[in-house]
Amino acid sequence: MSGACVGGLGYSASLGPISGLVLCPMAAASLVGLSSLSCGAGDRRFSSRRYCWNQKSCLKISASSSERLSQFAAEKFTPKVESLLDSVKWDSKGLAVAIAQNVDTGAILMQGFANREALALTIASQKATFYSRSRSSLWTKGETSMNFINVHDIFLDCDRDSIIYLGKPVGPTCHTGAETCYYSSVYDLLDEPESKQDQLASTTLYSLEATISQRKLEIDSLPNRKPSWTKKLFLDEQLLCSKVREEAGELVQTLLENEDKTRAASEMADLLYHAMVLLKLKDVKMEEVLEVLRKRFSQSGIEEKNSRKSPSK
Amino acid sequence: MSGACVGGLGYSASLGPISGLVLCPMAAASLVGLSSLSCGAGDRRFSSRRYCWNQKSCLKISASSSERLSQFAAEKFTPKVESLLDSVKWDSKGLAVAIAQNVDTGAILMQGFANREALALTIASQKATFYSRSRSSLWTKGETSMNFINVHDIFLDCDRDSIIYLGKPVGPTCHTGAETCYYSSVYDLLDEPESKQDQLASTTLYSLEATISQRKLEIDSLPNRKPSWTKKLFLDEQLLCSKVREEAGELVQTLLENEDKTRAASEMADLLYHAMVLLKLKDVKMEEVLEVLRKRFSQSGIEEKNSRKSPSK
Repeated sequence: MSGACVGGLGYSASLGPISGLVLCPMAAASLVGLSSLSCGAGDRRFSSRRYCWNQKSCLKISASSSERLSQFAAEKFTPKVESLLDSVKWDSKGLAVAIAQNVDTGAILMQGFANREALALTIASQKATFYSRSRSSLWTKGETSMNFINVHDIFLDCDRDSIIYLGKPVGPTCHTGAETCYYSSVYDLLDEPESKQDQLASTTLYSLEATISQRKLEIDSLPNRKPSWTKKLFLDEQLLCSKVREEAGELVQTLLENEDKTRAASEMADLLYHAMVLLKLKDVKMEEVLEVLRKRFSQSGIEEKNSRKSPSK
Repeated sequence: MSGACVGGLGYSASLGPISGLVLCPMAAASLVGLSSLSCGAGDRRFSSRRYCWNQKSCLKISASSSERLSQFAAEKFTPKVESLLDSVKWDSKGLAVAIAQNVDTGAILMQGFANREALALTIASQKATFYSRSRSSLWTKGETSMNFINVHDIFLDCDRDSIIYLGKPVGPTCHTGAETCYYSSVYDLLDEPESKQDQLASTTLYSLEATISQRKLEIDSLPNRKPSWTKKLFLDEQLLCSKVREEAGELVQTLLENEDKTRAASEMADLLYHAMVLLKLKDVKMEEVLEVLRKRFSQSGIEEKNSRKSPSK
């Protein structure tokens, strides 16, 4: 692969010693064109976390210029990255486990392996990049499908032999079209080996969201089934609205009346659940809500409020 | 290790062919004593997800009897598990990547490797168990520290060569005492290599929670710093309470007045943020709220409501 542009994204993989990092002009332009390297507010996370190494370099790299990107990689970025790459405990094959995780939902999207070059390229391009053991080559997730994972941060574990690419997926991550690659529950497989009903590995908030969605489907498909509180809320918007207001009031009461923290957690759970039923009626996913919150990170609440256009806010 | 009870938890690791699964009586009793194998409502997740293979087996295993556990493992469990283990694509060393994830927060706790025996034992014991490459032996996370990871579900990826242990950690997972093993941000390291300020890899909701906590700390430690909306809310409980009520009302309004879904996502973000500021004043973490929701999974909302003791609900 030395020196040639390879892969769907067409970057050079000849990063051997990282000082040799060369991004083909076409590839660099593609990367910048995909805005993976921009430093707009939307790409930052809460508080002081940075996605560029300093404001100057950040501005440089956000310009749509392959020349500038190469310059950035070669001059600004390389020495520190080399040192960091040296600190990773690569295994006997020069690899470390790399896990891609959705920055908003926490869903584990996929797991692959990274070598020095894959990690270096991910740091530089902010596209999750792996080393394919079967093809013995680098590959950027999405280079064929365009379903990139835009990396917002990268973490190393305590032993420095495991990596998290914390990012936002563009479309489904799995080659099967599933949102993530983890959709086979061992306990489901043991219970019903023939079952074709895939269920994504999901954490509490998203399991709840899936259950709420299921209840909505059942209203039409299984009208005679045992009624549930969720279905009742779906069928009576006035009840739902009054419950959301009521639960907010009860949460507030835990503060005003100095109720215990167990009560506060319980009231917040009530509020969250009822609000999520309402969101389902509006066809809004929790992931969209979290995306809104993430995009507000880079401003103070006061600045954010002042910047709103609506006079009612 | 053949046949002997090993490790802090003292189970036998002689699982060679899985039909040889033997749990030492002492170990089995310990496991049951730790209630990892109970099937109470609190251990289940939403909807139809199961933690036992069928209700009968589940009841069997929840009894505090090592004999029954061994019987369950040997008679009921083994043939299906063998077939499942055969379907995993173990690498040339007989290993697959195993990632432990917090079922409530989605945080990736740690990553290790599993062999057939480690996965079989995790399935049976519901304690995250790995194969240590350095020690060439099985180890259950927590067997020394007692910081077990109680596994609620296990997922395989599309290629069947990567595993998620979705579970609830008992205490910090990292041997350093950190909540997870991932606390070194590559971009932080590149920016300030000497920085000792560890920051956990956290997704949007928990980054927001950390920012809110930071603002609260700053009220005392940095009183002259630029005020933020969050700080203002902390200092004025009446304002905070009226904002929580107001945002709930605005979320409701998006449904009643048929506002667009972008508006609904934005109002939910507002509500969530203000409610989280209130939770901080009550010293309640979002993880505790999610735990409450998870523990309500196994009941319908109506049953759950009817089961409450408080007459006000």
